[in-house]
Amino acid sequence: MAVQTIATTSAPGTTGAPETDRDTAFGPAVALSCRECGERFPLGPVFACQECFGPLEVAYEFPSGDPEALRAAIEAGPDNIWRYAPLLPVPADVASRPNMNPGFTKLVRADNLARELGVTGGLHVKDDSGNPTHSFKDRVVAIAVEAARAFGFTTLSCSSTGNLAGAVGAAAARAGFRSCVFIPHDLEAGKVVMAAVYGGDLVGIEGNYDDVNRFCSELIGDPLGEGWGFVNVNLRPYYGEGSKTLAYEICEQLGWRLPDNIVVPIASGSQLTKIDKGLQELIRLGLVEEKPYRIFGAQAAGCSPVSTAFKNGHDVVRPVKPDTIAKSLAIGNPADGPYVLDIARRTGGAVEDVTDEEVVDAIKLLARTEGIFAETAGGVTVGVLRKLIESGQLDPAAETVVLNTGDGLKTLDAVAPTTGPSAVIRPDLDSLRDADFFRKHTTDDRNSREAGLA
Amino acid sequence: MAVQTIATTSAPGTTGAPETDRDTAFGPAVALSCRECGERFPLGPVFACQECFGPLEVAYEFPSGDPEALRAAIEAGPDNIWRYAPLLPVPADVASRPNMNPGFTKLVRADNLARELGVTGGLHVKDDSGNPTHSFKDRVVAIAVEAARAFGFTTLSCSSTGNLAGAVGAAAARAGFRSCVFIPHDLEAGKVVMAAVYGGDLVGIEGNYDDVNRFCSELIGDPLGEGWGFVNVNLRPYYGEGSKTLAYEICEQLGWRLPDNIVVPIASGSQLTKIDKGLQELIRLGLVEEKPYRIFGAQAAGCSPVSTAFKNGHDVVRPVKPDTIAKSLAIGNPADGPYVLDIARRTGGAVEDVTDEEVVDAIKLLARTEGIFAETAGGVTVGVLRKLIESGQLDPAAETVVLNTGDGLKTLDAVAPTTGPSAVIRPDLDSLRDADFFRKHTTDDRNSREAGLA
Ligand SMILES: [Zn+2]
Ligand SMILES: [Zn+2]
Repeated sequence: MAVQTIATTSAPGTTGAPETDRDTAFGPAVALSCRECGERFPLGPVFACQECFGPLEVAYEFPSGDPEALRAAIEAGPDNIWRYAPLLPVPADVASRPNMNPGFTKLVRADNLARELGVTGGLHVKDDSGNPTHSFKDRVVAIAVEAARAFGFTTLSCSSTGNLAGAVGAAAARAGFRSCVFIPHDLEAGKVVMAAVYGGDLVGIEGNYDDVNRFCSELIGDPLGEGWGFVNVNLRPYYGEGSKTLAYEICEQLGWRLPDNIVVPIASGSQLTKIDKGLQELIRLGLVEEKPYRIFGAQAAGCSPVSTAFKNGHDVVRPVKPDTIAKSLAIGNPADGPYVLDIARRTGGAVEDVTDEEVVDAIKLLARTEGIFAETAGGVTVGVLRKLIESGQLDPAAETVVLNTGDGLKTLDAVAPTTGPSAVIRPDLDSLRDADFFRKHTTDDRNSREAGLA
Repeated sequence: MAVQTIATTSAPGTTGAPETDRDTAFGPAVALSCRECGERFPLGPVFACQECFGPLEVAYEFPSGDPEALRAAIEAGPDNIWRYAPLLPVPADVASRPNMNPGFTKLVRADNLARELGVTGGLHVKDDSGNPTHSFKDRVVAIAVEAARAFGFTTLSCSSTGNLAGAVGAAAARAGFRSCVFIPHDLEAGKVVMAAVYGGDLVGIEGNYDDVNRFCSELIGDPLGEGWGFVNVNLRPYYGEGSKTLAYEICEQLGWRLPDNIVVPIASGSQLTKIDKGLQELIRLGLVEEKPYRIFGAQAAGCSPVSTAFKNGHDVVRPVKPDTIAKSLAIGNPADGPYVLDIARRTGGAVEDVTDEEVVDAIKLLARTEGIFAETAGGVTVGVLRKLIESGQLDPAAETVVLNTGDGLKTLDAVAPTTGPSAVIRPDLDSLRDADFFRKHTTDDRNSREAGLA
């Protein structure tokens, strides 16, 4: 095998990193390819096509082999995303490197929720709040970390208002990178703590999130930013591949089967497109039997440019100014919007949106039925699932998987105004007996007992 | 097999529950036995010995068989505590019942932390923040739920100021129980939301935590509380067994091996004693090879009655009034204190305590080195580990496992005062270049480059 070392971006401060064997550092990945014009480029820390400025994605050459053997190898792998290393742009020994090792989160059989929604074909919640920093961002950052290692970057960076900051901070700490995360300076105190506790640098930018992003773009083009891997900018093609693991896990956890429907939240739209890519790969490799599946996109009404385009039959997505409690989905100009429209239409799915009130109701519905406390993004998907069923867009007799991509502990404010104690009482039994909620239960019990006897 | 149905506590409101086959409902468990006088009682919703008022625990008759076969059966089981169903007081088909299915959380190889602490024998963090409601309480509640089912209880209850409330609320929702959780009425808003969001009843009691507990004791003895399973009172013998799974998982994840040292937080002390019980079972069943191990207990200085007794060579634990940020460990009169002293002394371990300031430092140390954001209880164990090493009480050349039993997102207040951004800057590159933290890095980089060239 030809050993080819790859040059680091030659910035001061990047010399500590070991040189990497490029032939093996990216596993089955062989190139970056432009999603618009198809042009191919060598694997590198680039994200836009030099021909047409289209977005680049990772292209693979998977070994053709026995699907049974591949399935067995995956099942014998670790209980995290690295079980799918043969399908990801990472080296074969990735599981032995310091990394947060996210993934293989629970696929929860949601029978109680199914009953409430009238789903008879089987309903599952893919619960990514079980990841190390409690959001799906751990998946994408984990892949970006390995790319950063291969490229010799020494600092991991991103702009963020929430989940991504924590995921990058934690991953950098474990993997031995410096980190520098940029946030709007007026972020809530709790979110600042979550982002800063891992000991990397956290920099407040005087301005809004758009200002933060503009600043980061400037930094990437400047010598000051050399040696820096921005997980969702110059490492974006690798980062995005992390979302494929959601598709792999869902199918494996169903017993190497495709579900009929998947309901996915839309922020940039990347997650939805990569889930589709993952499903297509499983079919092509013979890991699952081919059959039709439908992918549904979920947005908050206060930031629903893709849903609006879908309903209007448009191919382009008109940017909006976000105004919703689902802040982790509040991207007004979603880069992958057109691809999402394409996938929803091709698979027979749809894109739908729900109001903030419906988001809160759905968070509580999921908590009350399945004991899963979701972030607002999970309220969006569950709320949209309900709406899709009620409007006849999603067949309740089909098997459905709905994604929860984050943790309710991070968006307590969303439910706080409408979530409180049933009663406050004095510490004696008479006070309990007299409390309204308690009298109601006693009456309910008597009624159901009498109904049972009747 | 004799089919023997077991009477429910005959309260109004308990009739909905199916009758249960007692011969199979508790798997290998055969009795409750008194830890003081050894007297045995039938498996039932009782927690104190009728002879001597000592605490009851579950006694088993494990089938004698081939350890290899048992190991293989466990490894083929689900990725949660039910893989150990043959060793727990639960039915063999437990994995098919609605339950939160906690456990099999990550055992994280903590090489960075080991380097900082000078541990050379291998250091691992057992990270129970990965459980469904992000604390180890999901383990104990999961077992209590199955006992509640077997006894025909229809309401799950507890007193709590934090983690337990969420674990009970979530588990009841999933498993189809009503829940009613009692808390002090002046709990912080965030904790109320976490406890109330699952839709069960949450009752604020006008009084402090002692008043809440007194109230609950009264309720258990009253007809008003019939049909109610208080997970940590009348279901306590079953509940406690959930902690054994930490021992099982640690050993299995080490490759069916005992570690040399385990550092465990002490609240009531139950977790530590059950971990020891679990290790002893693994040895007796031939699942691990017998060898010496040491169990270390960790307390916060502001609530350190067991540590004080250990250091003074006492066998009894003198109650204290807790005053510490580690609220999940703030039990001033720990029921299992004497057993903890016994285990620490028998195994050659120790009990140590750290100040609140050391707790905060340790939370940050763990976050900075391993990307794990621990609850204050995790700060206590990591802080105590450091102190044990520095004082020569724990051999750094031995293999050590330290427990993190909860999630930092639930105790943000502990680190908030000392965790913030590195800088707040204007959105331009000059501002970044001039920021103190950034200039420092640049200098560090130049120094390390020059050192490398020298
Ligand atoms: Zn192109
Ligand atoms: Zn006794």
